[in-house]
Amino acid sequence: MNLLRDTVKGIGSIDGHWYSIAQKRLDNLTKPPGSLGRLEEFARRLVAITGNTMPGFDKKVIFTFAGDHGVAEEGVSAYPREVTRQMVLNFLNGGAGINVLARHAGAGVVVVDIGVDFDFPDHSVPHHLNTSGTGGLLISKKVMMGTRNIRKGPAMTRKEAEKCIETGIELANEYAEKGYQLFGTGDMGIANTTPSSAIAAVLTGRSVCEVTGRGTGIGDEPLINKIKVIEDAISVNRPVPSDPVDVLSKVGGAEIGGIAGLIVGAAAKRVPVIIDGFISTAGALIAYSLESKTKDYMFAAHNSVEQGHKIMLDKMGLRPILDLDLRLGEGTGAAMAMLIIEAGLKIYKEMATFGEAGVSEGIEG
Amino acid sequence: MNLLRDTVKGIGSIDGHWYSIAQKRLDNLTKPPGSLGRLEEFARRLVAITGNTMPGFDKKVIFTFAGDHGVAEEGVSAYPREVTRQMVLNFLNGGAGINVLARHAGAGVVVVDIGVDFDFPDHSVPHHLNTSGTGGLLISKKVMMGTRNIRKGPAMTRKEAEKCIETGIELANEYAEKGYQLFGTGDMGIANTTPSSAIAAVLTGRSVCEVTGRGTGIGDEPLINKIKVIEDAISVNRPVPSDPVDVLSKVGGAEIGGIAGLIVGAAAKRVPVIIDGFISTAGALIAYSLESKTKDYMFAAHNSVEQGHKIMLDKMGLRPILDLDLRLGEGTGAAMAMLIIEAGLKIYKEMATFGEAGVSEGIEG
Repeated sequence: MNLLRDTVKGIGSIDGHWYSIAQKRLDNLTKPPGSLGRLEEFARRLVAITGNTMPGFDKKVIFTFAGDHGVAEEGVSAYPREVTRQMVLNFLNGGAGINVLARHAGAGVVVVDIGVDFDFPDHSVPHHLNTSGTGGLLISKKVMMGTRNIRKGPAMTRKEAEKCIETGIELANEYAEKGYQLFGTGDMGIANTTPSSAIAAVLTGRSVCEVTGRGTGIGDEPLINKIKVIEDAISVNRPVPSDPVDVLSKVGGAEIGGIAGLIVGAAAKRVPVIIDGFISTAGALIAYSLESKTKDYMFAAHNSVEQGHKIMLDKMGLRPILDLDLRLGEGTGAAMAMLIIEAGLKIYKEMATFGEAGVSEGIEG
Repeated sequence: MNLLRDTVKGIGSIDGHWYSIAQKRLDNLTKPPGSLGRLEEFARRLVAITGNTMPGFDKKVIFTFAGDHGVAEEGVSAYPREVTRQMVLNFLNGGAGINVLARHAGAGVVVVDIGVDFDFPDHSVPHHLNTSGTGGLLISKKVMMGTRNIRKGPAMTRKEAEKCIETGIELANEYAEKGYQLFGTGDMGIANTTPSSAIAAVLTGRSVCEVTGRGTGIGDEPLINKIKVIEDAISVNRPVPSDPVDVLSKVGGAEIGGIAGLIVGAAAKRVPVIIDGFISTAGALIAYSLESKTKDYMFAAHNSVEQGHKIMLDKMGLRPILDLDLRLGEGTGAAMAMLIIEAGLKIYKEMATFGEAGVSEGIEG
């Protein structure tokens, strides 16, 4: 068997009659029809994705995939490479943005070392650090010690790219079986907006400068350099747009592959999955290119500052939930969007109907 | 003493040095500077509004002001007038949208009967109804049994309008003294988009058709009628734009006055206040017209479907937090925005600094 191919084949279509079932209940709640806008859309989609008229929402998890990037040596980021592993430790310790926001959303954080250039010791939470709250769980699924420099050659072999995607699928399967009802994606990897922009350019057909932004906050000169690096990476590697695994292996990243796999696996298991920001959306676009039905299982968390983000969301026909000028990644936008999607489900499940509340229905207008 | 005049006089300016203090901490957290976008803005504003480097957020409340409208007899709404009192009972019983979303946000719901055309018995929660969760608390502050029909004359007397605003101020004072740290506004009143559009037209100087929408969902014919009713109300009553109490008394509503007063009172007590949708924003515009400094204490919850909403927010220079196609009112958007604003404050209070986490800071780019 081939896990990637078989999982992609196992992704089913959404059965439209679930939307009608959910809509019927929504229209009977004590509010003008449609007046809760997108909250109602989220409820309908959760019912249809899960095929359950009363879907649960108790077990939520954000997967933050971490990997290093050989292209960091080209000066494309405002931060040194060691920040990837330092931030992984920060995630484990509970002090990062994703920890704070996942706690706020009632979600767990699973940090997946899929390609960090550092060997984390077991139980590597640095106990001497002083922060509040619980940290993330580290899962070691290392496929490589960081990608190779895409300006000079492929990021990874095709086999490694498949392994990254299958790692995400395995995690989706494991957590679906554990009873988790909602997944969020996240990323950590210094320089990873560079491969994400490369993927965006190749898979949307737009020019590199249209889909390349300032990442963690580089200035004008480094931005010009970053665009050149991505253009070089594409001309050196010649990724084939119709072959998403080829694109991932040539100009991608380990964490981007893991995210793509998580989405593919979630779709096959009918678990709704919230796509975080720019890097996660590059992973989502790989998943979508493998099988466009994956889109029906995705929620786009937010509209990032990174300019290529909206172009990729438009390509998939996804409308972002939030627009808060975020550009941190890690899954922070996904955690926030969880709170909004959950609000939609609670409306659907907890509001009184006209009959229950003794409220008069509308006059035909 | 005059409660309204004295409270307006007591509204102070925001001291800018608090923004710098908050920014300094935000820039030292383990993330690229500014990468959490508007979440950082919310944290800065909460620090500056409260004058507290570590503001609390444990006690939150949404005030849903309810009132009836004489203009309902002109066929401007898709719902019959008795729905106002039926929905108040639904609020008390916990089955309405605001109950569900306030529970989700960890906020209490205070339902203020400021002008409903119905005498609620004490303990009027209908125990026979079958819904989940806790309901709102009813506070009886009735100024009138609904407004008069604004197409034929003023909604209320000037004295009544002042009384409505002072009712909101008294509630702000009471709940600030009880230790509540964040207020949200909300409304219930069949036909109340009509006076709200009238207020919007008078105070922004825009034409009635530019600021009038479909409310609970009326069709094309009733919309044309609604615009005519509002135009008549303005030409019959001739509200004076420079005198917000005059505008409220002539074309307003009791709940809109209560909301205006709550905002004025919150600003005087330095309590941040989240403005819900179209009706709440009409109240906010009355407060802003009384004293423009009130704006510094407001957060605009969302961008409503109601077309006049954005025009009023622009007039005050407020940028909405959410854009979810909501048009329900009650405080539902305010409850959702609470979750997002709270996320910003948690980021500010709970994230580790670079020093604490042992993470390298950025390279000057």
